[in-house]
Amino acid sequence: MNSPHPVLFLVSADSGCVRADPDAPHVSVMDLGVTRGDGIFETISVCDGRAQALEPHLDRFARSARLLDLPEPDLGLYRQAILAAIEAHDDLAELYVKTVMTRGIEGTGVPTGWVYAAAAADFTTARTEGIRAVTLDRGLRHDVAQTSPWLLQGAKTLSYAVNRAALREAERRDADDVIFVSSDGFVLEGPTANVILRKGSTLVTPRTDQGILPGTTQASVFEFAQAEGMNTEYAVIPAADLLSADALWLVSSVRQAVPINRLDGVKRSIDVELSTSMTSYLLDRRD
Amino acid sequence: MNSPHPVLFLVSADSGCVRADPDAPHVSVMDLGVTRGDGIFETISVCDGRAQALEPHLDRFARSARLLDLPEPDLGLYRQAILAAIEAHDDLAELYVKTVMTRGIEGTGVPTGWVYAAAAADFTTARTEGIRAVTLDRGLRHDVAQTSPWLLQGAKTLSYAVNRAALREAERRDADDVIFVSSDGFVLEGPTANVILRKGSTLVTPRTDQGILPGTTQASVFEFAQAEGMNTEYAVIPAADLLSADALWLVSSVRQAVPINRLDGVKRSIDVELSTSMTSYLLDRRD
Repeated sequence: MNSPHPVLFLVSADSGCVRADPDAPHVSVMDLGVTRGDGIFETISVCDGRAQALEPHLDRFARSARLLDLPEPDLGLYRQAILAAIEAHDDLAELYVKTVMTRGIEGTGVPTGWVYAAAAADFTTARTEGIRAVTLDRGLRHDVAQTSPWLLQGAKTLSYAVNRAALREAERRDADDVIFVSSDGFVLEGPTANVILRKGSTLVTPRTDQGILPGTTQASVFEFAQAEGMNTEYAVIPAADLLSADALWLVSSVRQAVPINRLDGVKRSIDVELSTSMTSYLLDRRD
Repeated sequence: MNSPHPVLFLVSADSGCVRADPDAPHVSVMDLGVTRGDGIFETISVCDGRAQALEPHLDRFARSARLLDLPEPDLGLYRQAILAAIEAHDDLAELYVKTVMTRGIEGTGVPTGWVYAAAAADFTTARTEGIRAVTLDRGLRHDVAQTSPWLLQGAKTLSYAVNRAALREAERRDADDVIFVSSDGFVLEGPTANVILRKGSTLVTPRTDQGILPGTTQASVFEFAQAEGMNTEYAVIPAADLLSADALWLVSSVRQAVPINRLDGVKRSIDVELSTSMTSYLLDRRD
């Protein structure tokens, strides 16, 4: 039975994937996912029924689990739940699927897992007209993932309160989104997106050893660019390079690539042609 | 009916305080508390049936809500739920009560709240023999609460994955707990505790404008010290002062004051006499 409402599957080693009522509560008040934000997630875009970058998302899910010393997620079970949730959901043009695994109820050592599919918001305006971004200091040096792994930079954890607070700060500054900058002045990432700069015929994104999340959509954009004959580069990028770049994007699952039309209150031209073909490429991805 | 098991009350503007089964799930998989660690909490110690520092905890709960731009919690309702949970729990010598408020299910704008009381672990050994601590870099400067409020330093949020990761790092280093140090070399706090140093007849703790949580137990320790004729001081404390201090404690609700007997692998003498009278004072608190 297809549903226009979110479709939920609970995932556990004991019971496998079990469909459940998304309107009913399924998480204990003693679950470390909620009491400590202690868990991991992935958000996967689904276009015309196809989960995009599914294997890179599952790989990153497993990588986040390792960074948090969580039990290894059973990727086969999560893959099964993702496909089942998409199958059971109404066949809309764009959905998203969220996968979550928490450390479970305190003292049990048994993770809590679930997957749900839901209708994606309409991001057409953001994709075509762009968004306003502000730079905010993330307070951490660009090398903390190496020096201080307990800060969990580069892991996709449920502890996202700071990312949400940064988005509220952006709103206070009349903007839509954020580019985090390290305390020593390097471009990092957005709260839920990677940053891409165009410099001439080269696309550049921050190197992923700087405590930022390796982007599944960013990787697809680089594939696209290479196919178009452009150069791609992972680099340590001084914040000043944002000003001199020819164009800027935030790229992420679901919202895909959105050009930045204003940075820290200063208007920027957007690269309409490249944005359009980038978006087409991303929406058409078959895996 | 009293219970040796956790006692749970759900708290909402619509229904007030409603007792609920702690073994049943009560949180939606769409609740921002679990998907984003977007919410706040307090943990309150209960000795011989008395909630300790109840009003300071409730004040701090409201303060955290403000720092996260959450709706103001109805402290009257939370107070009622806390007292009801204690009343309904078996009358053990030491309990703890946890209060939680999340931003609620995404899109609703209605917070999710609950309170539960449960038996406290036995911390006698830690209180009398002390614990081993390591210093870890928190990666942030000591002044970020002023410069970058979106980093939510000083708010007691559900996004505690880093605090948990720091404790795992401590375990890897054969230690029990952590003292976070700022990236510019000042003493901050533990993942779930405040730090107190004794220098002669003065107790010193880090100034709370450094992005650390104002400690309810630390405040009680300072009251105790003043009553004993000692000096108390809030200061910006260089990390090197940890080495020269006469004694060190981590103080928090429930575990109360625990002396540090080893710091970064180096044995330290503990101040048995002061620790003993400090613990007696803390356990005997009437409000």
